[in-house]
Amino acid sequence: MTIASFFMRVSKALNSYPSSSHLLLLCTLSGGGVMAYSELQSEAEHPRIDANEPQKKKVVVLGTGWAATSLLKGLDASLYDVQVVSPRNYFAFTPLLPSVTCGTVEARSIVEPVRNIIKKRKGEIKFWEAECVKIDAANKKVFCQSNIENLVGSGEFSLDYDFLVVAVGAQVNTFNTPGVKENCHFLKDVEDAQKIRLSVIDCFEKAVLPSLSEEERRSNLHFVVVGGGPTGVEFAAELHDYVQEDLIKLYPTVKDLVKITLIQSGDHILNMFDERISSFAEQKFLRDGIKVQTGCRVVNVGDKEITVKVKSTGEDCSVPHGLIVWSTGISTIPVIRDFMEEIGQAKRHVLATDEWLRVKGCKDVYAIGDCSTINQRKIMDDILAVFEAADKDHSGTLTVEEFQDVMDDILLRYPQVQLYLKRKNLLDFHTLWKDSQGNEKKEIDIEGLKLALSHVDSQMKNLPATAQVAAQEGEYLARCFNRMDHCEEHPEGPRRFRGSGRHKFLPFRYKHFGQFAPLGGEQAAAELPGDWVSIGHSTQWLWYSVYASKQVSWRTRYLVLSDWTRRFIFGRDSSRV
Amino acid sequence: MTIASFFMRVSKALNSYPSSSHLLLLCTLSGGGVMAYSELQSEAEHPRIDANEPQKKKVVVLGTGWAATSLLKGLDASLYDVQVVSPRNYFAFTPLLPSVTCGTVEARSIVEPVRNIIKKRKGEIKFWEAECVKIDAANKKVFCQSNIENLVGSGEFSLDYDFLVVAVGAQVNTFNTPGVKENCHFLKDVEDAQKIRLSVIDCFEKAVLPSLSEEERRSNLHFVVVGGGPTGVEFAAELHDYVQEDLIKLYPTVKDLVKITLIQSGDHILNMFDERISSFAEQKFLRDGIKVQTGCRVVNVGDKEITVKVKSTGEDCSVPHGLIVWSTGISTIPVIRDFMEEIGQAKRHVLATDEWLRVKGCKDVYAIGDCSTINQRKIMDDILAVFEAADKDHSGTLTVEEFQDVMDDILLRYPQVQLYLKRKNLLDFHTLWKDSQGNEKKEIDIEGLKLALSHVDSQMKNLPATAQVAAQEGEYLARCFNRMDHCEEHPEGPRRFRGSGRHKFLPFRYKHFGQFAPLGGEQAAAELPGDWVSIGHSTQWLWYSVYASKQVSWRTRYLVLSDWTRRFIFGRDSSRV
Repeated sequence: MTIASFFMRVSKALNSYPSSSHLLLLCTLSGGGVMAYSELQSEAEHPRIDANEPQKKKVVVLGTGWAATSLLKGLDASLYDVQVVSPRNYFAFTPLLPSVTCGTVEARSIVEPVRNIIKKRKGEIKFWEAECVKIDAANKKVFCQSNIENLVGSGEFSLDYDFLVVAVGAQVNTFNTPGVKENCHFLKDVEDAQKIRLSVIDCFEKAVLPSLSEEERRSNLHFVVVGGGPTGVEFAAELHDYVQEDLIKLYPTVKDLVKITLIQSGDHILNMFDERISSFAEQKFLRDGIKVQTGCRVVNVGDKEITVKVKSTGEDCSVPHGLIVWSTGISTIPVIRDFMEEIGQAKRHVLATDEWLRVKGCKDVYAIGDCSTINQRKIMDDILAVFEAADKDHSGTLTVEEFQDVMDDILLRYPQVQLYLKRKNLLDFHTLWKDSQGNEKKEIDIEGLKLALSHVDSQMKNLPATAQVAAQEGEYLARCFNRMDHCEEHPEGPRRFRGSGRHKFLPFRYKHFGQFAPLGGEQAAAELPGDWVSIGHSTQWLWYSVYASKQVSWRTRYLVLSDWTRRFIFGRDSSRV
Repeated sequence: MTIASFFMRVSKALNSYPSSSHLLLLCTLSGGGVMAYSELQSEAEHPRIDANEPQKKKVVVLGTGWAATSLLKGLDASLYDVQVVSPRNYFAFTPLLPSVTCGTVEARSIVEPVRNIIKKRKGEIKFWEAECVKIDAANKKVFCQSNIENLVGSGEFSLDYDFLVVAVGAQVNTFNTPGVKENCHFLKDVEDAQKIRLSVIDCFEKAVLPSLSEEERRSNLHFVVVGGGPTGVEFAAELHDYVQEDLIKLYPTVKDLVKITLIQSGDHILNMFDERISSFAEQKFLRDGIKVQTGCRVVNVGDKEITVKVKSTGEDCSVPHGLIVWSTGISTIPVIRDFMEEIGQAKRHVLATDEWLRVKGCKDVYAIGDCSTINQRKIMDDILAVFEAADKDHSGTLTVEEFQDVMDDILLRYPQVQLYLKRKNLLDFHTLWKDSQGNEKKEIDIEGLKLALSHVDSQMKNLPATAQVAAQEGEYLARCFNRMDHCEEHPEGPRRFRGSGRHKFLPFRYKHFGQFAPLGGEQAAAELPGDWVSIGHSTQWLWYSVYASKQVSWRTRYLVLSDWTRRFIFGRDSSRV
């Protein structure tokens, strides 16, 4: 009974004093030999409800992915009436999805119920498990539909909003390739990863059956990955490890028949990374026996065969497959397509926001995460306004001093200027003022300014659709919402060159902390800020530390760490569950 | 890098010296504060293959449940050519299924891949993931069919056998109640438990949506359990704990609308247990607010309503429901039905075996686990043969000494005799010989013997369809197979009263180690051997220890223990994954 009462006490203690659980667990974890650093979350006891409060503004958040969750974690919910709508009642730590496909980490270890997350926030946040089917920006309304059938009650409802945050994510881009939807696995959701896991086991179980020819066994054990980006590469690497470390011991009769092919349309895999990483990955895959087929475009996917067109020769070639994972990029989901038409963005591919993450073409709607991109303002579009604002004495030319005055605002408003200066190794703004002979000029006219800044806008790039970007956007927006009233009176943004006064907030600025590409065999590559590249076993351990620290809750951190430990001790599970 | 190399070393060490992993883990576990005792498994290094060996006899095992797995764990596979066929490539620790429905334990923690189990056995065992669709006992052949579609190759094959072990289990018994198959959840497989878990969350997510009336919320949160046996009762208790400990914190607006109803056709729940347990459970459920509806038979199940007939009044009454779990007993699966027709058992409900677990009506086929029952031989059917065998001097009467001679064989062959003596508190056999006046007789004739044994056969009872029985049958059969050659020459069984010589093996004898009924709130009831009854918190801790120790592998033991720990610290997960 001592043990019983010990557990009871621990359990009770943890429930009453949430912060002590962190300390306890930290001890446990560090005792277990795995480093994990993390910021402690602030947690509120209970929502404060005050009847005398004025009517709060309604904020509706669509989605529970990286962007929405980091918004919710940062938002002071006591200031607003917050409602969250998403078809998934959990947040998923998507960078570990490739690990879930092979059981290195369990699906449940990377998910955290949204209700757990919002329970801990100041103020009450409501959550509805439903899909948003229509955004009516004109009437400030969203229409939602529950996906749960066979239970009584209408699953349809609508919500009014004062502010809407769209963070619904994106869907897989099939490029309209025939057969992809029917015959490919994707790797966007937890369910996708679980399905892949079952299918891999199916391939092996079918391949060893006594009635098959060797050719049929080979077909079933041919795993094809389409897309040489980080997800596709990581999945191929994970699968290779799973096969070599676990499955061939259990299915020894077919161990020589397994083949993994990675199809990439470009010339290199991981081509968004540094060249060193890309070629290291290709060489490692070559050593591992993973076939990398670059310069190939998939033209058709059947249930048994996949057809690719080799770009260099223009020839089609078909190979039988057991399983295909399609991981080639993202496209806009239907509800956002409809919304874009409504607000006059029909011709665009992706929903556009300004630098403050406000959706262009409507009021009080924000979009964050994969469903949108920031359409950066070109300085050349505003060049006249900038010139006029700087030219205080209306002399028609700018002096260095006059320009100095507006420089900070320009750098804030047009971040591409800073990037351009950095790239050109120019230390100061007025080095731009040199004429073609290299002589510094005292004053500059409008044509001179245009010339000086003519290449600046080419520095603009869309942010990648990564968890890191989405999370930073969510955080940024939470800060804006929290300071809405304060910034109304004390605007902190740059001056408005077109118009008067200042912008309420600083524009969103993405800070890149680097990116990992796990390559299997306990090796990883990482591109770190400042063009640092790190490759090898130590990088894999850095990966472990970073991913453990980035978990959304202590619960998932504990689960992920114990999954990794379990995998080291017992290997991966191959039950078809 | 020290951590890295530590893990590498541990991992390698564990793979090369399997037995050391047990010691290491035992330390870990006992350090964690949970007692777990367990028998160490013997493990062979590698299958020994000898080209000069004579052709081994083929043993085909159908199934991977309790019976088949305990057979495989005990069998000396070097003596036979063993093939296992099952649609599930894993063994599931079914007594923990009710825990899986609420996430107290994860599905994956209670399953162990069959290939892991057979890999550790002496000799090579082959496993095919397929369903047996036909047993052809006349030609000693089984026909199998893989359930994996959309992969190339024929999924059909047949296997020849010298010995067949049928351990395919049973299916849920719906008693042909309309609507059960379509609208009820079952609780037989891991998949069933997973589906229930998702559905419970669905009920809550739907019930809190803004568009529902209170009546609709109540309907969706009405959970119905049909069947008051150990599984149904445990599920109801688990669900109640889940709701009270976890869900009402996350769904506070509907906490008063949740209702759990347990429907039982008999007068009491847990009626196979001691009366004290049954009434304790009923009182606990009353306190917990779980409605127990005894004396009711379900007559129809709709997708929104369930109709029961109250036996006492004969009235039908319908109530709306959100989820129904049907757990009322088992029936024979189709392939066994066909097999029974083939071998002349068409009129029986369940496949019958003799006391040596051999299927009646065919040769070299054994059946173990839930798919069969042992049809015990009545002593009255053999009474003449017994008399003649005992009456060595053919005098027409038996002396005490003559009877003493065959007594041991009678007790072995007809275990009901021992039960009868025990129940009557008779210490010795020849106290039966008293005449109606209570005088002891010197000799007895056939009529006297018949009279003395006339009530003995009423002691015969079918064994319950439990994991414990199945596991013991599997172990028994493994021992028989391992000693087949030895016992051919040195039979160890009782004498054959009809015929000459002795039976090759001792008949199967079930040893009851007791049974648990977890009742929620960290309380359990247990019926232990010797009519001991134990109820309360300490019994729950006994339950934890026993279930931890009974795990099929160290891996699942580690997983189950860490699940329990996680649940104590973080509660149960409510993500819809």
